[in-house]
Amino acid sequence: MNKIAILTSGGDSPGMNSAIRSVVRCALSKEVSVVGVSHGYQGLIEKRFCDLGRRDVSNIITRGGTFLKTARSKEFYSKKGRKKAHQNMSEKGIDGLVVIGGDGTFKGALVFHQEFDFSVTGIPATIDNDIAGTQETLGFDTALNTAMDAIDKIRDTAYSMDRIFLVEVMGRKSGAIAVHSALAGGAEDLLIPEMEQSVSSVLKKVQQGREAGKKSWIIIVAEGSGKTLTLAQELREHIDDVRVTVIGHVQRGGSPSAFDRILGARMGSAAVQSLLQGKKHHAVGWFNDRPVTYPLQKAIQHKQEDFSEFIELVQILT
Amino acid sequence: MNKIAILTSGGDSPGMNSAIRSVVRCALSKEVSVVGVSHGYQGLIEKRFCDLGRRDVSNIITRGGTFLKTARSKEFYSKKGRKKAHQNMSEKGIDGLVVIGGDGTFKGALVFHQEFDFSVTGIPATIDNDIAGTQETLGFDTALNTAMDAIDKIRDTAYSMDRIFLVEVMGRKSGAIAVHSALAGGAEDLLIPEMEQSVSSVLKKVQQGREAGKKSWIIIVAEGSGKTLTLAQELREHIDDVRVTVIGHVQRGGSPSAFDRILGARMGSAAVQSLLQGKKHHAVGWFNDRPVTYPLQKAIQHKQEDFSEFIELVQILT
Amino acid sequence: MNKIAILTSGGDSPGMNSAIRSVVRCALSKEVSVVGVSHGYQGLIEKRFCDLGRRDVSNIITRGGTFLKTARSKEFYSKKGRKKAHQNMSEKGIDGLVVIGGDGTFKGALVFHQEFDFSVTGIPATIDNDIAGTQETLGFDTALNTAMDAIDKIRDTAYSMDRIFLVEVMGRKSGAIAVHSALAGGAEDLLIPEMEQSVSSVLKKVQQGREAGKKSWIIIVAEGSGKTLTLAQELREHIDDVRVTVIGHVQRGGSPSAFDRILGARMGSAAVQSLLQGKKHHAVGWFNDRPVTYPLQKAIQHKQEDFSEFIELVQILT
Amino acid sequence: MNKIAILTSGGDSPGMNSAIRSVVRCALSKEVSVVGVSHGYQGLIEKRFCDLGRRDVSNIITRGGTFLKTARSKEFYSKKGRKKAHQNMSEKGIDGLVVIGGDGTFKGALVFHQEFDFSVTGIPATIDNDIAGTQETLGFDTALNTAMDAIDKIRDTAYSMDRIFLVEVMGRKSGAIAVHSALAGGAEDLLIPEMEQSVSSVLKKVQQGREAGKKSWIIIVAEGSGKTLTLAQELREHIDDVRVTVIGHVQRGGSPSAFDRILGARMGSAAVQSLLQGKKHHAVGWFNDRPVTYPLQKAIQHKQEDFSEFIELVQILT
Repeated sequence: MNKIAILTSGGDSPGMNSAIRSVVRCALSKEVSVVGVSHGYQGLIEKRFCDLGRRDVSNIITRGGTFLKTARSKEFYSKKGRKKAHQNMSEKGIDGLVVIGGDGTFKGALVFHQEFDFSVTGIPATIDNDIAGTQETLGFDTALNTAMDAIDKIRDTAYSMDRIFLVEVMGRKSGAIAVHSALAGGAEDLLIPEMEQSVSSVLKKVQQGREAGKKSWIIIVAEGSGKTLTLAQELREHIDDVRVTVIGHVQRGGSPSAFDRILGARMGSAAVQSLLQGKKHHAVGWFNDRPVTYPLQKAIQHKQEDFSEFIELVQILT
Repeated sequence: MNKIAILTSGGDSPGMNSAIRSVVRCALSKEVSVVGVSHGYQGLIEKRFCDLGRRDVSNIITRGGTFLKTARSKEFYSKKGRKKAHQNMSEKGIDGLVVIGGDGTFKGALVFHQEFDFSVTGIPATIDNDIAGTQETLGFDTALNTAMDAIDKIRDTAYSMDRIFLVEVMGRKSGAIAVHSALAGGAEDLLIPEMEQSVSSVLKKVQQGREAGKKSWIIIVAEGSGKTLTLAQELREHIDDVRVTVIGHVQRGGSPSAFDRILGARMGSAAVQSLLQGKKHHAVGWFNDRPVTYPLQKAIQHKQEDFSEFIELVQILT
Repeated sequence: MNKIAILTSGGDSPGMNSAIRSVVRCALSKEVSVVGVSHGYQGLIEKRFCDLGRRDVSNIITRGGTFLKTARSKEFYSKKGRKKAHQNMSEKGIDGLVVIGGDGTFKGALVFHQEFDFSVTGIPATIDNDIAGTQETLGFDTALNTAMDAIDKIRDTAYSMDRIFLVEVMGRKSGAIAVHSALAGGAEDLLIPEMEQSVSSVLKKVQQGREAGKKSWIIIVAEGSGKTLTLAQELREHIDDVRVTVIGHVQRGGSPSAFDRILGARMGSAAVQSLLQGKKHHAVGWFNDRPVTYPLQKAIQHKQEDFSEFIELVQILT
Repeated sequence: MNKIAILTSGGDSPGMNSAIRSVVRCALSKEVSVVGVSHGYQGLIEKRFCDLGRRDVSNIITRGGTFLKTARSKEFYSKKGRKKAHQNMSEKGIDGLVVIGGDGTFKGALVFHQEFDFSVTGIPATIDNDIAGTQETLGFDTALNTAMDAIDKIRDTAYSMDRIFLVEVMGRKSGAIAVHSALAGGAEDLLIPEMEQSVSSVLKKVQQGREAGKKSWIIIVAEGSGKTLTLAQELREHIDDVRVTVIGHVQRGGSPSAFDRILGARMGSAAVQSLLQGKKHHAVGWFNDRPVTYPLQKAIQHKQEDFSEFIELVQILT
């Protein structure tokens, strides 16, 4: 392997820059040159290439987002688009590709590998931590801390005004941010996609709590539960002064936490090693405090998580 | 004056605790004792009194919200409620009252003074910075920094994905947080109540900018402009990938900034002095870097602010 | 088991309050009552006991340090002191003890168990992450992020002024904070107790770097390496403008990170379970993303860590 | 005026980048072109020039330090050096110069103006807030918040362990950071250059406080008082467990606060206006919440500050 390309695709997440820097510098240290591709897979099709030296990735680890930019590419969904991408890489002499992103990104990489027998490695990056086969993804720890900081701030008003707050955190399919931020933020209750809890049972607990003298209440709702508005309406029919806060895109940005920067650095290093060892269709994962590699095929499956212990603990600690 | 009461009323804001601590300790240093009233004016009616010593206000300056809690009191709007409040204070031997809050709080204090010739002093606390006669209110600086941090985080995604973001910040009648956070956050445009700018002129600027190669765009919208949804719809008709983030109640909480803690400490000291000097219906304000006192009558008028210079500067700096 | 006591001992670390809250509420949920002991082992001797209900641990998870206070107790080193402690606990009807602290704390707990066959459980809390048998200790993640934030700020000046900075981070026997913060902060080099690197080899690398055009340089030195001053002198003999910053006690405080709060909550729950299962001399550890329990005997051994992979990566990524 | 140069000189401070961006974009909006000079006055001598367009100053306001870099220039102290600088600017067609820095920077600018009748404007930037004629300098608010955050963290340990901490903050000639951070951080005492307070009187207060039951104690010492070590020794002779923390260079960096970013934006705009109005030797100051301009001659005088009110308030609030 003489030259690899690197791109970020799908939603951005904090720590992507740390992974890019690590891939670039680890590859260069093994005398493999690196081509940066901007705007994700679309950049492969449009030849948005730039050679990356050591200095080009200076001073980026402190920044959220991705300096290579990211995009969602419709063209890459088509065989024709992928063919163009492959041709552009061949012309440029690229013989390996590192992609950083979530499960859509990984599916694209696997198809690309299958069609052209091209060597690809995936680094999992998504604040939702919903990639199968890895305990951690880039950006989750930072997003969790951002959500927790928001909950801490909201508690100041909840406490001062004896109020009920619904706080919606990100997570389309996964309740990972919700359960972790509920536990870290000391929330009183939570609603997540993975959990059977009716809106009326939440209401009942709030009413019982208020009768017992507990006035302020923070309930974390995962975006993907789709129940924020229903719960707000239900509560408002019985209780004054219910407020809804949607933390939103703030969770996607910000300077990465130490954990995410280290994860990026170590996963980037593992990705380069994996390619150099001849693995052609692997993802880098994180297991028991170390990077591991495993087939992309496994990474694109649905991640089944059991949050029951977390949920129980949130309720005991309320 | 031998004994004063202190309460916080209306919405909470960061720095209230610093003002409470300062009032308590400054009064005690002049041998005036202090009664804390919880839940605002309602607490006066319900005799929610507790004597406050020096140690009772230890370790509170780092915290947002108000440890005395706050509330909105309907009873205090009635003559009967205020009479009860006055009677309760007389029984307790209280001969002065410090209220910390916004313009609703100040109106209540002034009526109370007029009806019972009771000595009152107001300390302006609202994240909106919309009290007449003072350049600063408690909580504004902290809220502004919180809004700016959110904008900084959102920019990571706006940049990485070439996206348009509308960011709604707090401010029901005032565009103060909006203009300041737009300038501090390097926003591309803004919509505030005090400013005539049509939704279509914003759209036009975004379109021209994108043609000229500027892809990401952050537009700050003051809550009080009421235009967030209209603008989002208008933009979405012409441009893909427009996102809305409502920063919300997060802006009201959090550990106070150095400025707000110092403001609380100095205003609290000035409030005690003002009462001891025999001023009976005054507010503490901030002018040219120092505390001043002036009649509550003036403080409850509409604050007229001219943000034209800020708005122009935001647009030049885009 | 009907009643347990809880104390924090040795140096404080962020996350202790989360663990206390979890122990209290988990025990109460199993109908075990809880006695808080202030000032560590010394509090056992001086009967500094207070009964802890659910509300007594409200609103503490956001705060660093320990609301039970901690201390180093000379008396507890003596048989006589421990006997007094045991007698006090017996009188109070306490039949189990949870201690939160580092390896000195654990040694005390083990001796106490051995002498009186008293049930003890240890929760590892130290920013140094130097307890054997557990991958994580309470406070390490927060301290690491604090050190990293300091490095980020120092880099602003290092970059702007083309300067060399030595940054001393905490870690008496362990280089854990040093290697992790060096990797997360993008430091150029590091000196830790676990690593053979001469002061002169650091100097040489700095000189070569500067000749090659790299002007600013941040070198992380673990407190326990004892080489901060020697290195500063050596560098200053050859290079102008070398600055030393000792981050110091700031690393020990601050609101705990999400990780440390969750760690505290889960370890606290595991500690209560461990006692109720009849384990009498165990520590709670963290392994592969979950709490585990293991004998205190193992926890007080020297933790052998191999940081070679980290060190190599720091040097590749420079 | 057709072309202006801009440079940063002396120590870096947060907000410099905001001022640079504002100068560049305000000048361009008036059709004046801008040359960036790197490494301060030394860059004028070595022709380290680069033309700055609007895009060159994108995404810099969030960062501490100065992207133009700064330096201390010995050559510029000599007439010969300044002549070279003047010649280089003439060749480049530059007819005005904006300098951002502290009083050393301003002195250089004034001499340069006097020798060559060259138009200069100074923007005051120093975390010490020690420039005469302006209430605020760029970087002070950020540094103050950094110092306060450190004090908040240290208090966690001071409280948990009943300890005495001396915390040294920056300020060579000025106690500005010390008095403000002592008030904002709720410190128990302080020592600053502007204040007569003996080390023994501090000791006495600590001893009296401890006898009265107040165990933890934070004393802020301004670097410029030179008394940190003496006080530490004196205290240690009488009290166990006294710790010293020197916050150090951390105070110089970090993402600027909202206040400093706005100050930079508004001062930068005022600097451009001042040059275009034909003012040839002025500084931009901040007075009563607005930018003002005044002769550099006045800015380089010693700033006399009266902190007695602050000091008294710190002591009442302890």
